[in-house]
Amino acid sequence: MSTSATEPVAAIEPPQTVEGWYVLHEAFHLDWPRWRALSTDQRHTAIDGLLGWLRRDAGSGAGDSAGDSAAYAVVGQKADLLFLHYRPTIAHLHQAQTARQRLAIAAYCRDAGSFVSVTEASLYEAGAHARAALQRQGLSPSDPGYADALERETATARRGLEQRLRQPIPVRSHLCWYPMSKRRGEQHNWYAMTLDQRRHLMRGHGQLGQLFRDQVTQVVSGAIGLDDWEWAVDLHADDPLTFKKLVTAMRYDGASAHYAEFGPFWIGLRQDDEGLRRLLS
Amino acid sequence: MSTSATEPVAAIEPPQTVEGWYVLHEAFHLDWPRWRALSTDQRHTAIDGLLGWLRRDAGSGAGDSAGDSAAYAVVGQKADLLFLHYRPTIAHLHQAQTARQRLAIAAYCRDAGSFVSVTEASLYEAGAHARAALQRQGLSPSDPGYADALERETATARRGLEQRLRQPIPVRSHLCWYPMSKRRGEQHNWYAMTLDQRRHLMRGHGQLGQLFRDQVTQVVSGAIGLDDWEWAVDLHADDPLTFKKLVTAMRYDGASAHYAEFGPFWIGLRQDDEGLRRLLS
Amino acid sequence: MSTSATEPVAAIEPPQTVEGWYVLHEAFHLDWPRWRALSTDQRHTAIDGLLGWLRRDAGSGAGDSAGDSAAYAVVGQKADLLFLHYRPTIAHLHQAQTARQRLAIAAYCRDAGSFVSVTEASLYEAGAHARAALQRQGLSPSDPGYADALERETATARRGLEQRLRQPIPVRSHLCWYPMSKRRGEQHNWYAMTLDQRRHLMRGHGQLGQLFRDQVTQVVSGAIGLDDWEWAVDLHADDPLTFKKLVTAMRYDGASAHYAEFGPFWIGLRQDDEGLRRLLS
Amino acid sequence: MSTSATEPVAAIEPPQTVEGWYVLHEAFHLDWPRWRALSTDQRHTAIDGLLGWLRRDAGSGAGDSAGDSAAYAVVGQKADLLFLHYRPTIAHLHQAQTARQRLAIAAYCRDAGSFVSVTEASLYEAGAHARAALQRQGLSPSDPGYADALERETATARRGLEQRLRQPIPVRSHLCWYPMSKRRGEQHNWYAMTLDQRRHLMRGHGQLGQLFRDQVTQVVSGAIGLDDWEWAVDLHADDPLTFKKLVTAMRYDGASAHYAEFGPFWIGLRQDDEGLRRLLS
Amino acid sequence: MSTSATEPVAAIEPPQTVEGWYVLHEAFHLDWPRWRALSTDQRHTAIDGLLGWLRRDAGSGAGDSAGDSAAYAVVGQKADLLFLHYRPTIAHLHQAQTARQRLAIAAYCRDAGSFVSVTEASLYEAGAHARAALQRQGLSPSDPGYADALERETATARRGLEQRLRQPIPVRSHLCWYPMSKRRGEQHNWYAMTLDQRRHLMRGHGQLGQLFRDQVTQVVSGAIGLDDWEWAVDLHADDPLTFKKLVTAMRYDGASAHYAEFGPFWIGLRQDDEGLRRLLS
Repeated sequence: MSTSATEPVAAIEPPQTVEGWYVLHEAFHLDWPRWRALSTDQRHTAIDGLLGWLRRDAGSGAGDSAGDSAAYAVVGQKADLLFLHYRPTIAHLHQAQTARQRLAIAAYCRDAGSFVSVTEASLYEAGAHARAALQRQGLSPSDPGYADALERETATARRGLEQRLRQPIPVRSHLCWYPMSKRRGEQHNWYAMTLDQRRHLMRGHGQLGQLFRDQVTQVVSGAIGLDDWEWAVDLHADDPLTFKKLVTAMRYDGASAHYAEFGPFWIGLRQDDEGLRRLLS
Repeated sequence: MSTSATEPVAAIEPPQTVEGWYVLHEAFHLDWPRWRALSTDQRHTAIDGLLGWLRRDAGSGAGDSAGDSAAYAVVGQKADLLFLHYRPTIAHLHQAQTARQRLAIAAYCRDAGSFVSVTEASLYEAGAHARAALQRQGLSPSDPGYADALERETATARRGLEQRLRQPIPVRSHLCWYPMSKRRGEQHNWYAMTLDQRRHLMRGHGQLGQLFRDQVTQVVSGAIGLDDWEWAVDLHADDPLTFKKLVTAMRYDGASAHYAEFGPFWIGLRQDDEGLRRLLS
Repeated sequence: MSTSATEPVAAIEPPQTVEGWYVLHEAFHLDWPRWRALSTDQRHTAIDGLLGWLRRDAGSGAGDSAGDSAAYAVVGQKADLLFLHYRPTIAHLHQAQTARQRLAIAAYCRDAGSFVSVTEASLYEAGAHARAALQRQGLSPSDPGYADALERETATARRGLEQRLRQPIPVRSHLCWYPMSKRRGEQHNWYAMTLDQRRHLMRGHGQLGQLFRDQVTQVVSGAIGLDDWEWAVDLHADDPLTFKKLVTAMRYDGASAHYAEFGPFWIGLRQDDEGLRRLLS
Repeated sequence: MSTSATEPVAAIEPPQTVEGWYVLHEAFHLDWPRWRALSTDQRHTAIDGLLGWLRRDAGSGAGDSAGDSAAYAVVGQKADLLFLHYRPTIAHLHQAQTARQRLAIAAYCRDAGSFVSVTEASLYEAGAHARAALQRQGLSPSDPGYADALERETATARRGLEQRLRQPIPVRSHLCWYPMSKRRGEQHNWYAMTLDQRRHLMRGHGQLGQLFRDQVTQVVSGAIGLDDWEWAVDLHADDPLTFKKLVTAMRYDGASAHYAEFGPFWIGLRQDDEGLRRLLS
Repeated sequence: MSTSATEPVAAIEPPQTVEGWYVLHEAFHLDWPRWRALSTDQRHTAIDGLLGWLRRDAGSGAGDSAGDSAAYAVVGQKADLLFLHYRPTIAHLHQAQTARQRLAIAAYCRDAGSFVSVTEASLYEAGAHARAALQRQGLSPSDPGYADALERETATARRGLEQRLRQPIPVRSHLCWYPMSKRRGEQHNWYAMTLDQRRHLMRGHGQLGQLFRDQVTQVVSGAIGLDDWEWAVDLHADDPLTFKKLVTAMRYDGASAHYAEFGPFWIGLRQDDEGLRRLLS
């Protein structure tokens, strides 16, 4: 009999999370020989269609046009082009995908990988942060009205996070994105630890991230129940060496060393309209 | 010598199960450029054929026409279209599959994955439920006729389950489906635990599922001996964020944290006739 | 240093086995659009060729024509057609394969998987069975001539097995076949147990199989040194639900729970000439 | 912190090895429909080219023409044809490969797998064998000149091995080849054992091989640093059942039970010129 | 609960590293039949284009033209051609890749694998080396100005390394390249060891490498955050047997035996202009 069979089923508490926009990464190989066989006019028309699609789908206004889109050239053979989409709903992501399939350039593209997720912030530290804020305002837990103030503070913080999770795609010249999961090994199992244990590990992990905040903008999106890995991590930076430095530092960090499983790493060079025209002409 | 070699071979009791309709998930990529190269008429005729096939095979009457079928648009590059079929027998599933291969649209579809299973309810709690029902009726184990009443109660419950496992596909706007197996690791091995240990874990798992029952309709189908994973889980919901919330909560639950192995996650948007026409035109 | 390094190298005895006919499973996708584009006459001629091949290669007489062949329609996207061949030698299997490549229909088929094995019975219980037979005949180990009688009894049993391993393919409407291996994990390692330990586990495994013998005909073939898994298991039944019930029961059995690794599961519907004509027309 | 972190870094000694000819396994699928669409003349010319290539590249003379080549028909869907090449250098292997790409039949072949290695004998027992040889000659370690005699004996043995590793491909009707590696698991790790421990395991392994030497000719080639597995094993026999018997016996042997990881198993039927003509016509 | 959950989160220090040029490995299959169907003139023009691209992109001057490129023929079916590029930035690697896609020969090439990395030296021993250098100069830690001298010495050493990481591709006839990662197993976890423990293992590893330095030029490039493995190792030698000898010796070394995970091994034969012309004509 397995030793685990007699373990009590601990009441494990998942972290609270806040979600924002849904995210679609979609990568493509371009069939260069067939693409180059087109006339210059045909190629220009197809590029115009692609740029129009990126712009039309990249409005950052309210409602249906909310969200953002960006294009990247991919280094190495994983893909030629990578599109990153932020949208208010999964149905909007599907609209962007359907519109892309109707572009003239779609006939020259071959699927190279995709990932569906939703921007996410975990609230491991939310309680601590709210209490610290009240302390800065001179409030003490023994004050009358402390509980109400704590609740207001927490709600304000959550609204701030929700806002932060609906920002346009950071504009940096390089992108590093990769999917990851937390390990559920027979000995090291993230999902069998208590909330306190996980909070402790996430705190160290977060402090490490802070060291790189000037060089790298990090966007985490959750994918449990949505795709095959549990999270997507997007790092945006102007110097790609910081990807190596940051991911290396993280790998020696307790939360990652024992508990992270990494998927493929994709490196992209952000392309504005002019860049896409040059790349595709 | 392996330590396990001297372990007694415990008499492990499998759970009792009740089965209903057989289930086929089948996903496809559409060759958009070739599909769009058809004339509008040809496309409409092909779409009519597809809709007719879905309707003809989706009768919920008795006998050969029993069962249900539904169509989904898939988000991301895993597939373009996903069809879900419920049928009384495996031979009926094969009929649906064969009829699909003869549709005009089949020439523009490429296989993207399939799964064969049968709707299933496990009876871990059947005995407890039957005894509770008799207690609610004022019967006590010492009453004459208790054993007969228990047997009748159990048979009635089983018939109720069998009925419940032959219901049409839940009508919700979003589908999340994934295959899974129970871990047979060297240390954590679901199949080496006693029935009581598994019942205990499944109880917690079920209570968690109950918390989401208003937002999500869950259909479990068994695939041991039928396909490469042991179960398929279908979650039907109107808000896809509940997929993330439910699967996350489950992942921290004892039955899943230690014993679940997950396959790919597929996200679909349910398409009625009008939706399919719009998607494919 | 690894703890295992100082372990004595136990003299592990492999089980004795008896082998019969060689077995080839070969599965194919059919290119339906191209196949349907043929004229009715061309299709009929190609189907006639296929049926002739199955019959010619399916003689159950002696010598070169010994063996059997059967055709199955596959449920799900793993394949469209599955052929199962029994032959006296591997060279005969290759002849069947070569003849198939020359059929007109071969131009419309794409490989979907194959497996090479040889029907096998392991003799874990052979000694015990022979002694029991002599006991039934009133012979006791102290009788003069017991040793000779035991040898004759064992040889007779072996010939009976060899005969049993050269029977035609069981005729049942459904087939479930899957490859499997015994685990060689770091802790649970089938090949590090003694013959007695394995005999004990196989006995329980066999008793379980006996419970289903009226509903399922099981054919085990060995593939160590022949293909990528160690065994193929073919279950033949008229009700496919028994596949689920049998494989589930086995999975909780000691020999499987700790020591079995399973490959893909294939479900086929047996097709006679008429069935193949209907499927392919 | 990992427990292994405080382990002393033992001075582990690799085995001495002797190498001979380089080896290339290369397998191909044949596009039968396109191949059969050729005229008889075109096919014959292409077959002549193939046979000429095998002969020209199969000279067993000295220098550039040294080495050997052989052709096999593969059973099952792994491939149709397998070529086995022995050559003095890797550059010669590449020449054979380049010449093959220029054959007319190459336009009808599709890659099905390859493996690069070099014939190898490990000298785990070399010292013991040399000392035993001197003892048979009546020399004792206390004799003057023993050290010199031992060195001469060892050098002679090494030259004998080098010769043995440059023999033509064994001529038997059946081939079984598979790649393998030694396990580097967290608990069972071949590369963390001492030379003595490995020598002990290899001795048992070798004795087992001796039991089959009349039925099977075994050629081991090393691939560490050359390809994705650490060794290739080629078994040549006239009765393919001996592949099953030998590999099964090995699997229960201490060196394999705990430390071997096996790749795919390929079964080939050796084809002389006449066999290739028949297969391809 | 997992035992690891109560472990303190040790403050693990990553090694300091110095980086030089970025590296792209890109491998291709050539479509020989289509390539040979070109006229001799068309092939020559396409080969000229390829050679021009290699030369233009292989300048070792300053600025945009800095870096190097080399071409290899690959042995076995992994690929036909392998290009190795060194460039000052990832954007320059992408330029080389884009220019290659525009070559006439690109229409006959199919992707066979790529890897993105950056040449790297780890400074595990930097402090020790600097202190040893000062000692050789007669300086002792108690001398005034020792701290300043140590800092200057360290900076000089780092500049030397940076220079060494921007050298052209070593010119040897054979290349062996493979990606690798450090193990993050549940028991053996490189990233959970202290800097001292890792330094100790790397020292033994380095000493082993020194034994082969006359026969093999080794270039290590880091890929954490850039591609799917953590490092690429390129071995350049004139005798490919030294690849086998070196990698075997390393495999028994403490740093590799317990902590290395290896990807595929590629063997290439360096091709100058004349070699490429011969190979492709």
